[in-house]
Amino acid sequence: MNLPSKILEQAVEQLSLLPGVGKRSALRYALHLVKEDEMRVREFAEAIVGLKTQLHRCRYCHNVSDSEVCPICSSEKRQRGIVCVVENVQDVMALENTQQYKGVYHVLGGVISPIDGVGPADLEIGSLLRRVQESEPAKVEEVILALPTTMEGDTTNFYLSRQLRLLDVGVKITTLARGVAIGDSLEYADEITLGRSIVHRIPFE
Amino acid sequence: MNLPSKILEQAVEQLSLLPGVGKRSALRYALHLVKEDEMRVREFAEAIVGLKTQLHRCRYCHNVSDSEVCPICSSEKRQRGIVCVVENVQDVMALENTQQYKGVYHVLGGVISPIDGVGPADLEIGSLLRRVQESEPAKVEEVILALPTTMEGDTTNFYLSRQLRLLDVGVKITTLARGVAIGDSLEYADEITLGRSIVHRIPFE
Repeated sequence: MNLPSKILEQAVEQLSLLPGVGKRSALRYALHLVKEDEMRVREFAEAIVGLKTQLHRCRYCHNVSDSEVCPICSSEKRQRGIVCVVENVQDVMALENTQQYKGVYHVLGGVISPIDGVGPADLEIGSLLRRVQESEPAKVEEVILALPTTMEGDTTNFYLSRQLRLLDVGVKITTLARGVAIGDSLEYADEITLGRSIVHRIPFE
Repeated sequence: MNLPSKILEQAVEQLSLLPGVGKRSALRYALHLVKEDEMRVREFAEAIVGLKTQLHRCRYCHNVSDSEVCPICSSEKRQRGIVCVVENVQDVMALENTQQYKGVYHVLGGVISPIDGVGPADLEIGSLLRRVQESEPAKVEEVILALPTTMEGDTTNFYLSRQLRLLDVGVKITTLARGVAIGDSLEYADEITLGRSIVHRIPFE
């Protein structure tokens, strides 16, 4: 793509670094911003820089937060003894949207993936183990492993469960129930999911 | 969408003002930026602010440019007597990519659209008429109307052609050839395009 200006080219290059944004979309975004008022564009840029300068990571769960400790970890209403381990911030939001979970979280920031060069030391695993061992900010009775069911997620689940057991503090380790989604017909469910559903069947209520 | 942080919310709101970007994509972009180095994010923001503070509009053709007069208008190799009127910067880029056009451009910045509140005064029409009347930066011999074939584009073409004729400087007014695209079969061409192709047939070479 031949752009008529270096300044425009730089902006397009930066915008196309966003996930899933190609050169064509980046150009559309840039030309949209060119048409906006300078004050509006400055606000836009400030909001983005704010993500690095003003946004905190919660000291305990590493979720994004406006304060040092996030509202979930500091809430009196949450059961701090139950910690749900998730891959990222979006997973916390998805679980919060269900309004079914009253425990707290631990955001790993990824999963172990040797191919991508992500090892245990790159994730918030040490802080999870300390959290369980030192009962800080609260005694942890249950850890729910809610990582994705990919090879990397399974590996990470396995690694975490082993490390947690090695602590020998008697913490209960659980994982999310997997099965046919509500509303789905059995005919179209994949075999592995349907198989799990029948093996891990639960009492009818 | 319940976001865990006001700062994140602000960034998502700003990012979702980009054309075609919804809240979900904006969140993905924001969380991607959260993971980046602060320096990288500052560069990103600076490139965007640069669109307003450093980017020029060419004095003659109103295309985006790093200098007061764009490389096309200042090139000795272009025929300055032929001015192609286009809606926006992307159209200039599309025509330049063909490497078939040796004239110069005039970027209107939109088309007349009463529904969207865009009148002739909101577009670079006055400067086009002055350019033709005052022969500045060069005597204009031909104006090519290359606006989109929408109702708004046609209206604008009609308005421009009338205004240009009123100047009474004998400028030639042309428009792009429309017809069945190269490689397309007649069977699947739309009727209006095919009709135009047969009416405006050209000598076989």
